[in-house]
Amino acid sequence: GYSQLPRQVHGLAGAPEWPALCAMFPDVTDRRALDLGCGFGWVSRWLREHGARSVLGVDLSRNMILRARETTTDPAIDYRIADIETIELPVGAFDFAFSSLTFHYIRDFARLARMVYRALMPGSHFVFSIEHPIFMAAADPHWIVDEDGRKTWPVNRYALEGERRTNWLAAGVVKHHRTIATTLNALIGAGFAIEAVSEFAPTSEQIRENLGLQEELERPMMLLVSVRRQA
Amino acid sequence: GYSQLPRQVHGLAGAPEWPALCAMFPDVTDRRALDLGCGFGWVSRWLREHGARSVLGVDLSRNMILRARETTTDPAIDYRIADIETIELPVGAFDFAFSSLTFHYIRDFARLARMVYRALMPGSHFVFSIEHPIFMAAADPHWIVDEDGRKTWPVNRYALEGERRTNWLAAGVVKHHRTIATTLNALIGAGFAIEAVSEFAPTSEQIRENLGLQEELERPMMLLVSVRRQA
Repeated sequence: GYSQLPRQVHGLAGAPEWPALCAMFPDVTDRRALDLGCGFGWVSRWLREHGARSVLGVDLSRNMILRARETTTDPAIDYRIADIETIELPVGAFDFAFSSLTFHYIRDFARLARMVYRALMPGSHFVFSIEHPIFMAAADPHWIVDEDGRKTWPVNRYALEGERRTNWLAAGVVKHHRTIATTLNALIGAGFAIEAVSEFAPTSEQIRENLGLQEELERPMMLLVSVRRQA
Repeated sequence: GYSQLPRQVHGLAGAPEWPALCAMFPDVTDRRALDLGCGFGWVSRWLREHGARSVLGVDLSRNMILRARETTTDPAIDYRIADIETIELPVGAFDFAFSSLTFHYIRDFARLARMVYRALMPGSHFVFSIEHPIFMAAADPHWIVDEDGRKTWPVNRYALEGERRTNWLAAGVVKHHRTIATTLNALIGAGFAIEAVSEFAPTSEQIRENLGLQEELERPMMLLVSVRRQA
């Protein structure tokens, strides 16, 4: 199941996009950080190890939060069970917000963007990853082979936003497809400035170490975004 | 050939993305406008009809510029033959920049973004459309049908930026594939703020009037971007 995935077992070392994602971070020293969909809390702990003053990690999964709490005795990390679809955070209480591969499970991203904006102090960064809309748009997303034998990813229903049900790990998991434009415009509409966008692709070195990553050159699997609340 | 396309024969009425694109425009009244890859000059003339003080339309095609010049006696429109891959425009000489479906033919988009930034006065908008990177990434981009009979668009080679050769209208036309991230980051790197992104999809009304547009819901064909040089 989910907890056996490389990124759950090995943490950040099992997430090939982590170097690209964490390259988007500001210096986190002394920042009050927010980790939305923290899972087992790998990034929350990384943030504290790299100087964050405090971290609030929230996740809907009781099991994950209980596991996360077992991993640390650091009193400056607060792991809480909460639904980020509806959570209201205190205004101006954070100096950095982060989320890894969570927002494609959220129905109302515009609400979330506005809420995170209010929760951040002016000048703060908000960095997150999601499943790439191109990866999850199709009715039945899976590798196919084109006439020339090339691995190919099917895209359909791209402009038709809304629920996508997959049988990845568990049957009937519900994801919410939004176009790239919808995601970026929601952030701009909330008041954020777009700082950088990345469509994760493995480096040559990563491919040498893990040939399975080669296929990630064919289609974008993850979208990484860095935005900033203006100072 | 190219000059027989609906958008060349009927102008803006033949371009289904035009309403979405022109909705991104600022008020153009009294602005000195730039139309990069102006073709037959439809947008250059529209800009003057909507109050622009002057328009410089540039295109590499001598035939198109000669045709564009025949369409108007307006002394405030200047149609010139020039290669926007290398053109240098005067600093601060424009208050609005526009381009339609041209930049995917440009090798060095980062240079172009910096050049347009310098050519614009602070506060000015730059609005353009390109072929969507998802539309043009694949080695052989054409509709396929998935196992359930659904029209599907193939994506491969997405992270492998560079030349794409197609046989659309003429054999061996060279386009330059860049990821969405590369395009947006080049604009941000040049100093622009991203104002809005749109992945053109036809409205229900457009589909009722032209059923052929229905398939544009399956995959994004065009990327529309509005950026601004900060005031």
